[in-house]
Amino acid sequence: MSTIDEDAHLRAAGRPDPAAFLEGRDLLERDLLGLWQGRHDNLLDRISEYALVPAGKLLRPLLVLESARCVGGRPEDLARPALALEYLHVATLVHDDIIDEDDMRRGRPSVQAAFGLASAIVAGDGLLLETFAALTGPLPGDVPADAVVALVNVTAEAGLSVCRGQLMETELVGDLECGVDRYLTMAGLKTGALFEASCRAGAILGDAPQEWVEALGVFGSRLGVAFQIRDDLLAFDGTSALIGKPQESDLHNHRPTLPILLGYQRASADERKRLARAFHEDQPADRSYAVVSEVLEATGAREAAGEVAAGLIRQAKDRLTALPACESVVTLAGIADYAARRRF
Amino acid sequence: MSTIDEDAHLRAAGRPDPAAFLEGRDLLERDLLGLWQGRHDNLLDRISEYALVPAGKLLRPLLVLESARCVGGRPEDLARPALALEYLHVATLVHDDIIDEDDMRRGRPSVQAAFGLASAIVAGDGLLLETFAALTGPLPGDVPADAVVALVNVTAEAGLSVCRGQLMETELVGDLECGVDRYLTMAGLKTGALFEASCRAGAILGDAPQEWVEALGVFGSRLGVAFQIRDDLLAFDGTSALIGKPQESDLHNHRPTLPILLGYQRASADERKRLARAFHEDQPADRSYAVVSEVLEATGAREAAGEVAAGLIRQAKDRLTALPACESVVTLAGIADYAARRRF
Repeated sequence: MSTIDEDAHLRAAGRPDPAAFLEGRDLLERDLLGLWQGRHDNLLDRISEYALVPAGKLLRPLLVLESARCVGGRPEDLARPALALEYLHVATLVHDDIIDEDDMRRGRPSVQAAFGLASAIVAGDGLLLETFAALTGPLPGDVPADAVVALVNVTAEAGLSVCRGQLMETELVGDLECGVDRYLTMAGLKTGALFEASCRAGAILGDAPQEWVEALGVFGSRLGVAFQIRDDLLAFDGTSALIGKPQESDLHNHRPTLPILLGYQRASADERKRLARAFHEDQPADRSYAVVSEVLEATGAREAAGEVAAGLIRQAKDRLTALPACESVVTLAGIADYAARRRF
Repeated sequence: MSTIDEDAHLRAAGRPDPAAFLEGRDLLERDLLGLWQGRHDNLLDRISEYALVPAGKLLRPLLVLESARCVGGRPEDLARPALALEYLHVATLVHDDIIDEDDMRRGRPSVQAAFGLASAIVAGDGLLLETFAALTGPLPGDVPADAVVALVNVTAEAGLSVCRGQLMETELVGDLECGVDRYLTMAGLKTGALFEASCRAGAILGDAPQEWVEALGVFGSRLGVAFQIRDDLLAFDGTSALIGKPQESDLHNHRPTLPILLGYQRASADERKRLARAFHEDQPADRSYAVVSEVLEATGAREAAGEVAAGLIRQAKDRLTALPACESVVTLAGIADYAARRRF
């Protein structure tokens, strides 16, 4: 599927979480619960469990497992290192919610809303550290130490890219003229890098030849950026209640997401003025959100952003042809299709 | 030296930084500058360099190098992994300053005062991630991969202990009756764990037998707690200008440090009331600081806290006897002596 399939889009919207149907996710969720439930003897573990459970889509660990399986690894052994990538992701969410002053996450109070600023900062740090403790804790005996070292390095470097992307995002705040290229660089760092690392991590755990590691890395990177663009679009799909996050968050933070940048590019002089006024407003409310939505609608910017995401998904799936045909390649392609049309 | 040597104390106070004279520190500082100066192409590196340079005492990487040397390692090759422990330490300082609302650190604006809250959160995360990137980047060829895996695990677990200690510290806020034992547990997690990990890391890099790893670990742990107690005492030594941090920070945050806990234990009913009133005051100012200082003076609590630190230093140095006698053991003992009397 190379463009957004609106029928699938609508069908998917009727389900609680399409990703829940993807193979491997249930296994991962069970392992996550097994590792975290009942670790209540100290405050750090209690807050970490609150942040991790109930689980999100678990896309990153799923990418680890399916990438490992693609190249011949045994995913049943690899849940623990795979979940390490989720810890890093959730750490960034916990800290993001502080930065964005978002009090809701996944339909309930965010960590800082539930536990306060100090605990949320420390708990995010704790999850970053859990990432590396989990990657170097007991692993299946057939994962050699040099693969573990590579895994830690890939994960740490990806985390650094996420940080660079987050800072670049703050530099772009309020800048309606930053352009699509800078946005795509930022999204590649902020979101693409960890998807890429997840796929590379799976390939490394499966002892893949370098060519397959690279192919899976490019797949993950493109997929991640497409995923970020769909995330930007969710704010204007009227589905924010489903993701449990206020739809105005990006707008409230004056963040030039791809649909807004494309809308601004395509707008008439008059529409530009209205868009800019709504975008820069000190306390953007329902009214400014409505103005932005209207301009995106009039300029076709939502569809254009969807096309950019679809193009990235095409590129991502194209790289899968470098891998041996197997069930996991089909699953990875399915995850890419899901990302292209997700409303969650 | 098993008790506080007041003469040395005074002599040391005349020097800009006694730790600067310890062998290995200059080498480390040069390597730190070499690794960070000029990495200005992105905001994350610029903020990280601001946080790291000019360097602090570099005690943790120094412990890595001297511990490695003790067991036969070659410290000239090990600056990069040794400095990784400093990155973790500085990450916690950057985030601590947000939590404590401290605008000054090492005599200049703290990271959040200089760059804002969002950048400080992300930069702290970045330094945590640099820790693990540095531990798994190019290392001397004779460090085997399984030693690197152990190194990452020890470091990540120590970081988790620091987080647990920080959260425990927030739980103790405002509690003048939490008792010395809980304080010591908290200090062992918050400060002891990373000193312990530094010594263990050095021993692992030097391929030491397990017995020496354990001895160095205990040395580091005791040293770290003593160091924390001396840090608590700095607030009442009139030297806060030298450390570039407001002396009222702990008091302002209603933190029951060891001298305050011991003062409360030893105080008369009347002194207790005055201490409690000053401690709990909403906006403790110079006056409440003076009241607390006066009660600590009257009860001999400062000296008593100093004796606890000195006892820990004795225990730490005692463990060095398990190691082969060499120049580095003398240096480690010297670091312990410095920690026992530090005014910086």
